[in-house]
Amino acid sequence: MSEFFPEVPKIVYGGPTSRNPLEFKHYNPDEVIGDKTLKEHLRFSVVYWHTFSNPLSDPFGAGTAVRPWDDGSNSVPNAQRKARAAFEFFEKLGAPFYAFHDRDVAPEGKTLRESHANLDEVVKVFKDEQARTGVKLLWGTANLFSNPRYMHGAATSPNLDAFAYAGAQVKKAMEVTHDLGGGGYTFWGGREGYSTLLNTDMKRELDHLARFLHLAVDYKKQIGFTGTFYIEPKPKEPTKHQYDSDTAACLNFLRTYDLLPHFKLNLESNHATLAGHEMMHELEAAIGAGALGSIDANTGDPLLGWDTDQFPTSIYLTTQCMLCILGMGGFTTGGVNFDAKVRRESFEPIDLFHAHIGGMDAFARGLKVAHAIIADGRLSSFVTERYRSWDSELGRRIESGNATLTELEAYILPKGEANKNASGRQEMLENLINEFI
Amino acid sequence: MSEFFPEVPKIVYGGPTSRNPLEFKHYNPDEVIGDKTLKEHLRFSVVYWHTFSNPLSDPFGAGTAVRPWDDGSNSVPNAQRKARAAFEFFEKLGAPFYAFHDRDVAPEGKTLRESHANLDEVVKVFKDEQARTGVKLLWGTANLFSNPRYMHGAATSPNLDAFAYAGAQVKKAMEVTHDLGGGGYTFWGGREGYSTLLNTDMKRELDHLARFLHLAVDYKKQIGFTGTFYIEPKPKEPTKHQYDSDTAACLNFLRTYDLLPHFKLNLESNHATLAGHEMMHELEAAIGAGALGSIDANTGDPLLGWDTDQFPTSIYLTTQCMLCILGMGGFTTGGVNFDAKVRRESFEPIDLFHAHIGGMDAFARGLKVAHAIIADGRLSSFVTERYRSWDSELGRRIESGNATLTELEAYILPKGEANKNASGRQEMLENLINEFI
Amino acid sequence: MSEFFPEVPKIVYGGPTSRNPLEFKHYNPDEVIGDKTLKEHLRFSVVYWHTFSNPLSDPFGAGTAVRPWDDGSNSVPNAQRKARAAFEFFEKLGAPFYAFHDRDVAPEGKTLRESHANLDEVVKVFKDEQARTGVKLLWGTANLFSNPRYMHGAATSPNLDAFAYAGAQVKKAMEVTHDLGGGGYTFWGGREGYSTLLNTDMKRELDHLARFLHLAVDYKKQIGFTGTFYIEPKPKEPTKHQYDSDTAACLNFLRTYDLLPHFKLNLESNHATLAGHEMMHELEAAIGAGALGSIDANTGDPLLGWDTDQFPTSIYLTTQCMLCILGMGGFTTGGVNFDAKVRRESFEPIDLFHAHIGGMDAFARGLKVAHAIIADGRLSSFVTERYRSWDSELGRRIESGNATLTELEAYILPKGEANKNASGRQEMLENLINEFI
Amino acid sequence: MSEFFPEVPKIVYGGPTSRNPLEFKHYNPDEVIGDKTLKEHLRFSVVYWHTFSNPLSDPFGAGTAVRPWDDGSNSVPNAQRKARAAFEFFEKLGAPFYAFHDRDVAPEGKTLRESHANLDEVVKVFKDEQARTGVKLLWGTANLFSNPRYMHGAATSPNLDAFAYAGAQVKKAMEVTHDLGGGGYTFWGGREGYSTLLNTDMKRELDHLARFLHLAVDYKKQIGFTGTFYIEPKPKEPTKHQYDSDTAACLNFLRTYDLLPHFKLNLESNHATLAGHEMMHELEAAIGAGALGSIDANTGDPLLGWDTDQFPTSIYLTTQCMLCILGMGGFTTGGVNFDAKVRRESFEPIDLFHAHIGGMDAFARGLKVAHAIIADGRLSSFVTERYRSWDSELGRRIESGNATLTELEAYILPKGEANKNASGRQEMLENLINEFI
Ligand SMILES: [Co+2]
Ligand SMILES: [Co+2]
Ligand SMILES: [Co+2]
Ligand SMILES: [Co+2]
Ligand SMILES: [Co+2]
Ligand SMILES: [Co+2]
Ligand SMILES: [Co+2]
Ligand SMILES: [Co+2]
Repeated sequence: MSEFFPEVPKIVYGGPTSRNPLEFKHYNPDEVIGDKTLKEHLRFSVVYWHTFSNPLSDPFGAGTAVRPWDDGSNSVPNAQRKARAAFEFFEKLGAPFYAFHDRDVAPEGKTLRESHANLDEVVKVFKDEQARTGVKLLWGTANLFSNPRYMHGAATSPNLDAFAYAGAQVKKAMEVTHDLGGGGYTFWGGREGYSTLLNTDMKRELDHLARFLHLAVDYKKQIGFTGTFYIEPKPKEPTKHQYDSDTAACLNFLRTYDLLPHFKLNLESNHATLAGHEMMHELEAAIGAGALGSIDANTGDPLLGWDTDQFPTSIYLTTQCMLCILGMGGFTTGGVNFDAKVRRESFEPIDLFHAHIGGMDAFARGLKVAHAIIADGRLSSFVTERYRSWDSELGRRIESGNATLTELEAYILPKGEANKNASGRQEMLENLINEFI
Repeated sequence: MSEFFPEVPKIVYGGPTSRNPLEFKHYNPDEVIGDKTLKEHLRFSVVYWHTFSNPLSDPFGAGTAVRPWDDGSNSVPNAQRKARAAFEFFEKLGAPFYAFHDRDVAPEGKTLRESHANLDEVVKVFKDEQARTGVKLLWGTANLFSNPRYMHGAATSPNLDAFAYAGAQVKKAMEVTHDLGGGGYTFWGGREGYSTLLNTDMKRELDHLARFLHLAVDYKKQIGFTGTFYIEPKPKEPTKHQYDSDTAACLNFLRTYDLLPHFKLNLESNHATLAGHEMMHELEAAIGAGALGSIDANTGDPLLGWDTDQFPTSIYLTTQCMLCILGMGGFTTGGVNFDAKVRRESFEPIDLFHAHIGGMDAFARGLKVAHAIIADGRLSSFVTERYRSWDSELGRRIESGNATLTELEAYILPKGEANKNASGRQEMLENLINEFI
Repeated sequence: MSEFFPEVPKIVYGGPTSRNPLEFKHYNPDEVIGDKTLKEHLRFSVVYWHTFSNPLSDPFGAGTAVRPWDDGSNSVPNAQRKARAAFEFFEKLGAPFYAFHDRDVAPEGKTLRESHANLDEVVKVFKDEQARTGVKLLWGTANLFSNPRYMHGAATSPNLDAFAYAGAQVKKAMEVTHDLGGGGYTFWGGREGYSTLLNTDMKRELDHLARFLHLAVDYKKQIGFTGTFYIEPKPKEPTKHQYDSDTAACLNFLRTYDLLPHFKLNLESNHATLAGHEMMHELEAAIGAGALGSIDANTGDPLLGWDTDQFPTSIYLTTQCMLCILGMGGFTTGGVNFDAKVRRESFEPIDLFHAHIGGMDAFARGLKVAHAIIADGRLSSFVTERYRSWDSELGRRIESGNATLTELEAYILPKGEANKNASGRQEMLENLINEFI
Repeated sequence: MSEFFPEVPKIVYGGPTSRNPLEFKHYNPDEVIGDKTLKEHLRFSVVYWHTFSNPLSDPFGAGTAVRPWDDGSNSVPNAQRKARAAFEFFEKLGAPFYAFHDRDVAPEGKTLRESHANLDEVVKVFKDEQARTGVKLLWGTANLFSNPRYMHGAATSPNLDAFAYAGAQVKKAMEVTHDLGGGGYTFWGGREGYSTLLNTDMKRELDHLARFLHLAVDYKKQIGFTGTFYIEPKPKEPTKHQYDSDTAACLNFLRTYDLLPHFKLNLESNHATLAGHEMMHELEAAIGAGALGSIDANTGDPLLGWDTDQFPTSIYLTTQCMLCILGMGGFTTGGVNFDAKVRRESFEPIDLFHAHIGGMDAFARGLKVAHAIIADGRLSSFVTERYRSWDSELGRRIESGNATLTELEAYILPKGEANKNASGRQEMLENLINEFI
């Protein structure tokens, strides 16, 4: 049980005055907020790719990560040892969930058949470790972007074979996810986009992408997998422009191809800001469409134009997320998934603990602040009151689709001018939020 | 006929070697490209707001525009004189179309009734001038954002009266547009968005916006107006976040509320780039949905974060636009509408001519280049060839929805690896474009 | 004393549990932190332009501000009444300082002489009100950008007369600032920049700008004004590119023209981020050069590309500012100047109070947090420890300029590889900051 | 001579009507423009790192580059074979120059001594190949950012050993550059910057950076290397914030530490735009300080926030560059260095030819256009005329430092208002540029 992080104890709750970097200051998993424990509200999940498979390289330099359990080989035993290290990490951290891509967990073989077999060997360890620890799979997915075969995309590749290969990979990844009792399966658009429009038939590529997702929907039914299908928007990187660029683009795509009933969105903070939206905007846009499923909790650097995938530490950000999530009634199959990585300079195993503890504390605070704001009631009362004029006879007529422009003209012409507006009170409301932070 | 721009002759085509700033170098209206004249292809339109009503102020300084026909009064006769100056400009420039908001052309009165009456007085001049010159109205619209009554939006205002007032204003503007034989009517979302999510019920506001557009659709039918309804995306400014932020957001909204059959998009270059998309992306996204109607032709400064609405002069940009527009078969009711303004430092009437001549020449060149690229055929052949693998038996099965993941796996497992990819040849294609510029 | 804001009492400290929007939750002016009171540390200043002269218009709409003391006339008595309203505001808010441009406070006349006279009339009221209330002038300045005469810049105008006029205006504004006992005088580059490089002789314009500042330095000496000269960087807006774009550009310019001894920087948060820098970067860059003088405290919207000048409410931002300011030993002549404006939708006088109270509370919290972090010592110890290897014999030799590349090679060649790096611990340090927030 | 690119002939000039992708359309090396041949004007240089050492990986996927001469080993013979392939490429392309980092050309050994030895082995091939082909070294440099030892920077590392190692590496790279007759040596700041300010002593790091450069200046003198030292600004990536962020930051740094006499700038287009400046701005800023040395010719994607290092194909960009470079009298030791890489999807050797041919043609056109604009004279006359008022008695007095504010006031007060401004004519000038494109 203490093979891989011998110096790290089980992370416990030390309270706000603790100065121990390896204790939670705010995340007390069994504390009840409203009708649920923090653990039930937040459903934290650790991602395998950044935390266990990312060498911490960047485009200008080699990996720096020091991972004592990794012998550097591309072997199955090495992958299995990494899996056990991962579960020790999940357990010590107290994360109830994890998430992975097929290629994060097992080495790619020389053939697809070999890759399948490698994956199966590691999944056996996952099964054992899940049973031993109670940690569950939030969602699985397939990596359809790293191998050069996917250079032009997978479902949207001009190369039919890339599509077929991707289909076979998704089939296997879905089976494995199902087998592990995963709560969902995520489609992130990897290289589904373009490098230049000059060589691209965008319409045909989108048609192919829709066909691909329909194939997955069909197969899900066939194997009886009842987890949620998530689609994760991102506007750019690695491609110049990804098709699933933001919530609106995903919803429009899903509506166009009759896929909306089968998908919910997995929204990532850093992808939201790269697309020019606040995370709260994306959350509300998805919630308004009944389509929010889960979140990838991280943060970007607002001054950098790439996906920095940093651990979230801003209480403002976590409060906004939790206001939305509490507002929609909380997660069902989804959770707070840390799609975040330590900086390249934070290369030691202990940094992985600092990073996750900080993110979990930040979300625990965000939850508490959001709950308090909702309980206080002033914010929501203000908003309700602001639309009061619509709760009139005329307002109701318009909202129910029974008014006409002629009627509106007849109402306003004799008045000559509209009733006065009220101040939007943005500054007062921003101060109100600060009362709780 | 030469009352307002006495020193400016009718702008004629001088050809590429002309060094006269008041001659076209490339726009020869009656020259035939493919099956149409340049005039028919490009359907240039001058906007009233920037060219005749913009004082060239900015947030840091007063207006600089010197407009000899403007006596500075807010009177109807002044507005009528401006109208005649505008038509002299359209005529000398040789622009076959123009576009306006209600409040650009006539002063706002103390009551809505008075504003209606003022508008009617100017519209009379428009009618006369249209008859005299043959210049036509590309589209009309209503200004639902300048008056403080619209501070919180118009259709999305929490103040019911703002909605009602906006409805009455749109009713009148549609009537006037119909009366002038306008080819369309445009909805740009002015302040339909928010300054902060803290005080905003986004879902309710979007419901109201949809109701508003349905009211307009109903009234259009009622009065027998057969022009096209356009919706114009813009991501931000004046609000922090506009609901109609880009093509995808508009299409998603229109689909959600069963409005798609009634609207086409009017895409503006500068709004595309502010939303993080190339204009060509937005054009192709709209064309793919059968929803491209018209374009607002301008350019932004890629290093500035606001809508600079500059006149387009990049042949690369105009070529890309015309590749898309020729690709979809050309405009029907829409056109190339210069929603562009001269810089605050270009404050003399002659600058308006320089600016439009430059924009028209740039689009004429873009048209010629795009036509030549299409006639050459290498670019489209390359793209077609790139997807050749899909024209196979398996490709057809997938495209027609008759494949399964199991079948794909059965195909690829024995192969072990996908067929090799071909180079995307981006650099070669960029060079190919340069062959024609 | 209660003429203009009759419903607003003197703003008092209510403490963190107060729910009264018109009480301070954290700013207790006489509370001592370290060796000074909060009032002495923070030296809050209200800006006249945004708070008393901004109509809250934007490029898409008319002003919305409701200011009962303003009769809408461009008269001196109206300006004097506004001055008294302003001092009532300063007093009720408890702001010890204010700042203004010449044209904010008094109407521009038909001639410069008339403008001077108008200014003098309002300055008399300022003098009386300063005496009555004890409120002081943090700094004065001249508006060299709003009038069309400055369309091409003032000191950098190609029009010599604009330069001369600007010189005369600065002369007067310096005299008035001196007369009012102002602690400083600020040069913000208004339109000192360009709209296009095509028409610009950048080198000649920069030479002129330097001459202009030297003229001011000379005149300062002549009249015996001992306040600080500040230069305020901003990268863009209103011009496409301002010469004083950021701290580095200002320092380089000042060094080039032998002006560095005469100027300190006034750094604005929103200008920092528009230039692509964190405010903390700009502060440290200026402090490193011994050139930080004062700050314009506001915040931008990281998703918007223009200067939103919002009131600061993020405790992270204010903590970072105060870490730097405490680190350099606090302000001398400078202060925390709220160069911030309420949103266009926050148009009532009471919104001005909400906004300033929120900003003052945010900075008071930032000060307390920063002080606690410094007192705690872990952060600075970590940094010191991180550079420990430099406190060696070789480190000292290098730092003092006594090493050579040959010596370095001789040291490292036999070792073959450098000593191991230590983790940068970014996540742990971010968590540490959160311990104090 | 045709070992590595057997199907590619020597690239010849085919003229503007050529449709052969392997011919120049505009770059005719011996054609004379003004007083020099195109070859002498443009001094094209190929970069070793992108063209011969970049595997075309990205943060989301493995390398795709197919390079038949590369056996995949990290051996010296493999590196030597690559060197011969590179010179065959230079020769067939007709590039007179190349540039490299130490680690691009030879494998890093287990010790620094071994790395030195590996480098020497490859440099022997370079010497032979230079002699055989006449191709010259534009500049050399050392890679001080890829190895994990440099994770915290090299000259600015908190780890003294990283500094020492970097010093030894620079010493060797300078020797090698000198030995190969290189025209210059470039310092690009790799990781000289920070990931977070929380763990950074910015002032101490900048002091170290200055010391490092002084060491290099001393050693240059010692070995008698007379080439130019270049410093290359870049604002971010790989670090969050690089110290040499733009021209102004570099000049300010160089002035602060008395280094300006020893350095010129190597400006890269994509770095300029990442820093928020047009390339033309950076060029003029450097030229104004007498500090422009060379350019890294590429282009960024204005919608992407990272360094895409694309080959330049916009004639507008190349025209602007050449207007500046011709304006300063042309290059001396510097040149047009293609610090650009083919897209990851352009993975075949032939793509390297397409890319360079396109970039060379684009710069040849830019040169011809710029020369024609200068010969035409209208643009520069307009600019000169615009500042005419400064060529007056008063203008001369101000420019020579003999005026006072009092004198300016005495001049303008009686006039009351400044002389009228003239229009900036931005649109006319943009059209003028288009006359030549
Ligand atoms: Co994610
Ligand atoms: Co991400
Ligand atoms: Co528009
Ligand atoms: Co626009
Ligand atoms: Co400011
Ligand atoms: Co500002
Ligand atoms: Co470079
Ligand atoms: Co670069």
